[in-house]
Amino acid sequence: MKEITNLIAYRPDVRVIDATLRDGGLVNDFYFNDDFVKALYQTNLKAGVDYMEFGYKASKEMFDVKKFGKWKFSSDEDIRAIVGENDTDLKIAVMADVGRTDYKTDIIDKADSPIDLIRVATYLNTIPEAVDMIEDAYRKGYEVSCNIMAISNAQEGDLRAALEILGKTPVDVFYIVDSYGALYPEQVARLADLYLDIANKYDKKVGIHAHNNQQLAFANTIEAVGDGVDWLDATYSSMGRGAGNCAMELLLGFLRNPKYKEYPAIQFIDEYMNRLKAEGTVWGYDLQYLMTGLLNQHPRTAIQFTKEKRTDYAEFYREVVAQD
Amino acid sequence: MKEITNLIAYRPDVRVIDATLRDGGLVNDFYFNDDFVKALYQTNLKAGVDYMEFGYKASKEMFDVKKFGKWKFSSDEDIRAIVGENDTDLKIAVMADVGRTDYKTDIIDKADSPIDLIRVATYLNTIPEAVDMIEDAYRKGYEVSCNIMAISNAQEGDLRAALEILGKTPVDVFYIVDSYGALYPEQVARLADLYLDIANKYDKKVGIHAHNNQQLAFANTIEAVGDGVDWLDATYSSMGRGAGNCAMELLLGFLRNPKYKEYPAIQFIDEYMNRLKAEGTVWGYDLQYLMTGLLNQHPRTAIQFTKEKRTDYAEFYREVVAQD
Repeated sequence: MKEITNLIAYRPDVRVIDATLRDGGLVNDFYFNDDFVKALYQTNLKAGVDYMEFGYKASKEMFDVKKFGKWKFSSDEDIRAIVGENDTDLKIAVMADVGRTDYKTDIIDKADSPIDLIRVATYLNTIPEAVDMIEDAYRKGYEVSCNIMAISNAQEGDLRAALEILGKTPVDVFYIVDSYGALYPEQVARLADLYLDIANKYDKKVGIHAHNNQQLAFANTIEAVGDGVDWLDATYSSMGRGAGNCAMELLLGFLRNPKYKEYPAIQFIDEYMNRLKAEGTVWGYDLQYLMTGLLNQHPRTAIQFTKEKRTDYAEFYREVVAQD
Repeated sequence: MKEITNLIAYRPDVRVIDATLRDGGLVNDFYFNDDFVKALYQTNLKAGVDYMEFGYKASKEMFDVKKFGKWKFSSDEDIRAIVGENDTDLKIAVMADVGRTDYKTDIIDKADSPIDLIRVATYLNTIPEAVDMIEDAYRKGYEVSCNIMAISNAQEGDLRAALEILGKTPVDVFYIVDSYGALYPEQVARLADLYLDIANKYDKKVGIHAHNNQQLAFANTIEAVGDGVDWLDATYSSMGRGAGNCAMELLLGFLRNPKYKEYPAIQFIDEYMNRLKAEGTVWGYDLQYLMTGLLNQHPRTAIQFTKEKRTDYAEFYREVVAQD
């Protein structure tokens, strides 16, 4: 059992990262209007959130800028139009996907950028390129984190090897990423032990990015924070791909550091997130995501089911079991 | 950390209790049609559920039979119309509330009843009457469990005293009941320790009945089962008062005993629960329930907010904080 003081005191090293624009952008192809983004920025400031992730630094060679909103590409100019010089305690992050980012050209020196943190996202089989990207971002003056995605079906040996490689880079934070929403809290506890073991050896921090396929995104996040994981991703109203993420409004209510405030989160949801939903943007826990999570499958079939507005859940269950 | 085998093996003592009619009945005043109830019974049989709770044995002196569906009163005749002689492995339960049940007359001898289990529900301050009801049910030949409600704001000393009293009765199971949906998994772990400590002394079992105000009903239930709690309440599609309960479809997917089957649950939700929702019955996690859960308040104000179809969440937050 965890320390009885954990729920009453707090660990000052905890950092809350708002991933609404980035993971939520996967739901609406990054079409957020500026009013929304400005209100989100103000909300994060008031709520005491530590980092705001704006979106991806996606390659304009690979992705058609006419087919996505601007936060797919998150140019420094577009970020500056929202945050100005960002003379605040809220730091700015973007995500850079291995193989989908022209990082050598599109990520400029930190001295000339409003961005503070580059979040490198990788699969286990692309760790060497992730290392290149980490070193590039570090040389340019950024904080750097690394998300190893889809680990719920990774071999522990491979994961350990990857973390050992990352430990020797200048990365600041390793992320546990439950891309499929397949992990139970007990498994998160074991992964946190594994990650922290190597993180402590190399003086790194550990983070968690959870998905809500089994209504466990919040539970897995607070399990992890109880285990010593410091960097916590959340999104307002859980907005994120498929079943969405750990809800910011749940996480802020749980954390005991007085700098975190619940009311600005409630206000933002009331005014902005609920409007997105009312206008027809669809995300969040539903039976099709439970099924892919339970079977530890990529959520793409469930996302397709949602897009097609199918409601034949029993038939979908037969399909995903057949594909298992 | 829990035993690494917990997620792969299973504990044969685990029992799954379907509380859909009873806790779900609080949402629709117990107006379920017979087709629904028969399909639910068949689903529980196919899914390997251990107990099906039909509803309350509410006093017809206190409650107007014209204002509620029949499962508020759960007469033996009405149950028999669904289950016949119930020559199956699925046992039948009803709930009897302290102070709201004419148990001396309305609960007949087990020998003449299709019911197997009487679930006595009590608050801490009505334990002596709960003891009377437990002894009455035991004498009549039933299995008996006892739900101590609203314990998230109980004094540990009072709770311990109550469990010591119940330990000396013929009750079979003590239930941890998170009526307000206020508990975090770490708190559930501590409560499970307390309950199991006294349960083991008197050779009783421990159960859990969770609410989903903070999206933790499933997480708290699997935390408890990992801690040694055997009796697990769940409802299809989480149907239950306010934010609802632990979802049966999540729980059956988690449990590793091969007798539990996921597919019948999915089929039932597809055909019946989703229709209830489409027809306008409203329950389940939403922001107003998060707020009362977070503040460890009774959900009645949040239920009222839902009934009035209010959507001014920020104003509601100000109201509940003011009432705190």
